[in-house]
Amino acid sequence: MKYTDLINEALRGYMPKSDDIVSRAMKYSIENGGKRIRPALVLSFCEMCGGDIEKAIPLACALEMIHTYSLIHDDLPCMDNDDFRRGKPSCHIAFGYEYALLAGDALLTLAFETALKADLPPDRIIDATKELAIASGWKGMVGGQVIDLQNEGKRVTVEEIENMDKLKTGELIRVACVMGCIAAGRRDLIKSAEEYARCIGISFQIVDDILDVTSDTATLGKPVGSDNENEKCTYVSLLGIEKSKQIVSELTQKAKDELQNFDGDTSFLEEFADLMEQRKN
Amino acid sequence: MKYTDLINEALRGYMPKSDDIVSRAMKYSIENGGKRIRPALVLSFCEMCGGDIEKAIPLACALEMIHTYSLIHDDLPCMDNDDFRRGKPSCHIAFGYEYALLAGDALLTLAFETALKADLPPDRIIDATKELAIASGWKGMVGGQVIDLQNEGKRVTVEEIENMDKLKTGELIRVACVMGCIAAGRRDLIKSAEEYARCIGISFQIVDDILDVTSDTATLGKPVGSDNENEKCTYVSLLGIEKSKQIVSELTQKAKDELQNFDGDTSFLEEFADLMEQRKN
Repeated sequence: MKYTDLINEALRGYMPKSDDIVSRAMKYSIENGGKRIRPALVLSFCEMCGGDIEKAIPLACALEMIHTYSLIHDDLPCMDNDDFRRGKPSCHIAFGYEYALLAGDALLTLAFETALKADLPPDRIIDATKELAIASGWKGMVGGQVIDLQNEGKRVTVEEIENMDKLKTGELIRVACVMGCIAAGRRDLIKSAEEYARCIGISFQIVDDILDVTSDTATLGKPVGSDNENEKCTYVSLLGIEKSKQIVSELTQKAKDELQNFDGDTSFLEEFADLMEQRKN
Repeated sequence: MKYTDLINEALRGYMPKSDDIVSRAMKYSIENGGKRIRPALVLSFCEMCGGDIEKAIPLACALEMIHTYSLIHDDLPCMDNDDFRRGKPSCHIAFGYEYALLAGDALLTLAFETALKADLPPDRIIDATKELAIASGWKGMVGGQVIDLQNEGKRVTVEEIENMDKLKTGELIRVACVMGCIAAGRRDLIKSAEEYARCIGISFQIVDDILDVTSDTATLGKPVGSDNENEKCTYVSLLGIEKSKQIVSELTQKAKDELQNFDGDTSFLEEFADLMEQRKN
């Protein structure tokens, strides 16, 4: 993907240089082959809005650190208790429960340090970092994790799943697009960015649910069938695979339509929407 | 204490209004009778530097949220495994392991949201919040927690304990004093603030160690003798109680001497140094 090398190199630069166990756990998790979807959205929205992507890199990396911390904590035994992540032992399996906990805490904290170091006008730094905090906290991603835990083993409706996904995975995707606009000084485009993000976010989660049923562990890089095992209600378990695929297709088109509100080159984000629909892992 | 009511009222205002389990866990932990030492240091340094304490309140509360999150995570079974905190069941005992984890994550995130909302010049907000992130992260408090975990059951030197305390408890006390100076626009006084904090920080930790041996659970509000039980090396176990008390007394005087570099009213911070030496819990 267009921005991946840029993001990976910057992320490596922000990681601790030291070799203690938590620093190693942080690097292990951040380097464990993520798709860098969220930081790529920050940079592409910034570019499409006419901004300088170099200056948005700290915001993009901060978001990826928050995503990574959430995966580390999500995998812990007291949460989803997943031993594998992207085909490799999860952080707590590789480094121990206590150090995985602290590595997550340290990545969350480093995210804010990194965002605040961006070479942007101070009001944009504050605005973007505040958005990041709100999207990641109890009103956003953490709120979604809470609902997710409480839904386990319960019969829930499509609306309830949508609400959970909107927070748990959707908020970071939304704030990625929003931070890109803010970095470029285009707060006026946030509404359109949010609508694109909303469509991509729901679509992303549905594809996850589909792959959990239709893929295999080698392709997916994580155990398949875990939703079923954990008695999780998903789009697929409620609506079936065909109907789920149809919704993904409609959302992808809607996301692409929304890009007409931007003056810049929309080709990357159009392809990105297609890529999200067709992804295999 | 002079600033306690102000801090408690502001903290209540920043907490979630909702009633879900993580919101309740956050409020339970934040309202659980902390001494509010760190936020009081922010406000008193701000005032002593000629700043407006009202405007430093978000920074002060952010710091208390970070302190509270660290206690929640420290108490978890995979860390210190403490069932009680300030005489009441720890967060994970009251709400469950997974919700205590998320309440800690949410408080850490809310801290940054809150700090960034301060009504101060943007450069001071960025400066103070960045200091807060650095002090709380892998180079600061989390780094100290790592060393603490690794020291358990090992024979360590006084220097090694000092280094651990400097990070684990010292960094938040240091950044409290630093943020107070920054909020007042007096970066030039940071060196003196840091020296005061250094003395108070070491003294604070030694008094903790002394109380763990000399106090009882009812007075202290947490189980006594836990350092001994966890085979932790402390000042007391290495130097004895009398020598430890003497060091506390010298540090207290040194902290008070440092206040001569400030033009404002130093009486609160002088009394504060004495109070820290004489505290019973």
